[in-house]
Amino acid sequence: MIPETLETYFLTRKAEVDQRLEATLPAASCPPAGLHEAMRYALFAGGKRLRPILCLAACDAVRGRRDAVLPFAAALELIHTYSLVHDDLPAMDNDDFRRGKPTTHKVFGEATAILVGDALLTAAFGQMAEAGLAGDSPPKKVLTVIRALADAAGSAGMVGGQYADVASEGKPHLDLEQVYDIHMRKTGDLIRSAVRIGGMLGGASPKQLTALTRYGEAVGLAFQIADDLLDVEGQTIETGKSTGADAARGKWTYPRKIGAEAARKEAEAMSERAVSALKPFGPEADRLREIAVLVVRRTK
Amino acid sequence: MIPETLETYFLTRKAEVDQRLEATLPAASCPPAGLHEAMRYALFAGGKRLRPILCLAACDAVRGRRDAVLPFAAALELIHTYSLVHDDLPAMDNDDFRRGKPTTHKVFGEATAILVGDALLTAAFGQMAEAGLAGDSPPKKVLTVIRALADAAGSAGMVGGQYADVASEGKPHLDLEQVYDIHMRKTGDLIRSAVRIGGMLGGASPKQLTALTRYGEAVGLAFQIADDLLDVEGQTIETGKSTGADAARGKWTYPRKIGAEAARKEAEAMSERAVSALKPFGPEADRLREIAVLVVRRTK
Repeated sequence: MIPETLETYFLTRKAEVDQRLEATLPAASCPPAGLHEAMRYALFAGGKRLRPILCLAACDAVRGRRDAVLPFAAALELIHTYSLVHDDLPAMDNDDFRRGKPTTHKVFGEATAILVGDALLTAAFGQMAEAGLAGDSPPKKVLTVIRALADAAGSAGMVGGQYADVASEGKPHLDLEQVYDIHMRKTGDLIRSAVRIGGMLGGASPKQLTALTRYGEAVGLAFQIADDLLDVEGQTIETGKSTGADAARGKWTYPRKIGAEAARKEAEAMSERAVSALKPFGPEADRLREIAVLVVRRTK
Repeated sequence: MIPETLETYFLTRKAEVDQRLEATLPAASCPPAGLHEAMRYALFAGGKRLRPILCLAACDAVRGRRDAVLPFAAALELIHTYSLVHDDLPAMDNDDFRRGKPTTHKVFGEATAILVGDALLTAAFGQMAEAGLAGDSPPKKVLTVIRALADAAGSAGMVGGQYADVASEGKPHLDLEQVYDIHMRKTGDLIRSAVRIGGMLGGASPKQLTALTRYGEAVGLAFQIADDLLDVEGQTIETGKSTGADAARGKWTYPRKIGAEAARKEAEAMSERAVSALKPFGPEADRLREIAVLVVRRTK
């Protein structure tokens, strides 16, 4: 048998996640139809499904049962998508394009976009509780996962990072530590959580979970720096969203703070740190290792 | 001992809920400080805590342990408050006042108000998972409650109702059934859920839970009709929010659809239906009975 390449792995996991999302989200025709249509538009707009895939790959790394983790991987994508829909709103980052398509509020209006985000976030928690009741994982472990994800996505995590990001716009000076803090909350917390959840539900030992946490932290930061570099260097046609937008808004990023060259080196260093965190694992963590390399090499 | 009046009951339960919210929400000074300050502003703006109190009173009706239900009662208020903050946004109902105070976005800006809502919703689920791990209720029952609340608050419930409400604005005609459907989703689902959750966690029998569900449904509708009547008849100084706003926006309400007089009769009928649903219960459900009467007599 030909060994599965990373590309095949990505495509297969993405298809599984999409199928799960497809099966659990109400049909576009379910009342209120307009809302469900808009939720599906936001969710199936061509995302890479990085967070669910990291979650499933972490489950693989501890030789866990991937099917038991799948609903939680899908919930991660629901949370990620809701955050994009809200971040794109005129009152926030005011982005017209995302993944090469008009953003949800451009197509369905602001009121609907706000409600789409609210509904996706709510569905994420409903989905996890549902999976817990289906019995593939112990209920107590599922509650631990729900609490962890609420922490990572809430006011001390992702939402807090987005707040600090918006609040820092146009400020004349930020320490590198503050930029790091915004990045970790805004992007890092959910990515770390994705990796941890895959490990926890997959049955990781405490030592394995510590290693996965360090991996997740490093990959999250590497990813965010790479994303900011794309905003500086990328082309709209490649990234599917407006470039140079961060600078225009006076956003604080690694490239702005320490320069593009140093930022790229930092992202590479984080990628290496992620790989070295996986030393306790054998080839079962190869996918995680490959993803750590990939996130800093991507062009979109 | 002097028997506890409904007023004392309300005040005592409200104090317990507020204390719980106070204890679990990060301090206003916790980073990011501005966000937590705004979350507290929205949450402690003088709400009646109707949903938590209904939840606790339902627990009393089945002689359950109120302290085990309290975190879930608090979660209901987090969800209700988030929905108010988002509904008040300029893109939605564009309300400047709520409970006699400027709305969250008027004080902290739109971006912060969107994030406040997101963070409160996320905190509600974190809070429930946390309570489940504390062990006062069986983890599986807690998962059932989380799923039920996600259903009641999500795209097929509260968020769906708000969507349908906004979408129906300015439409030349709506059937009474459609108006009923919007009301049930927008307000009824969360109120019914509040009553059900109090019963479930309090140890209700299937028969008791059916009765509580019927009660919750009728009370929810009575409350929403009474609320719409206040919008028509009330004064800003009494209701703490702008009156006549529904009509100005072309919103569909019971008073608009069938007239104020018929709407008041319908609210009274719903209140009576709620009381009669409680026939299987003795005096332990007196608080629920009193609340059903109160919701249609309130002046603010």
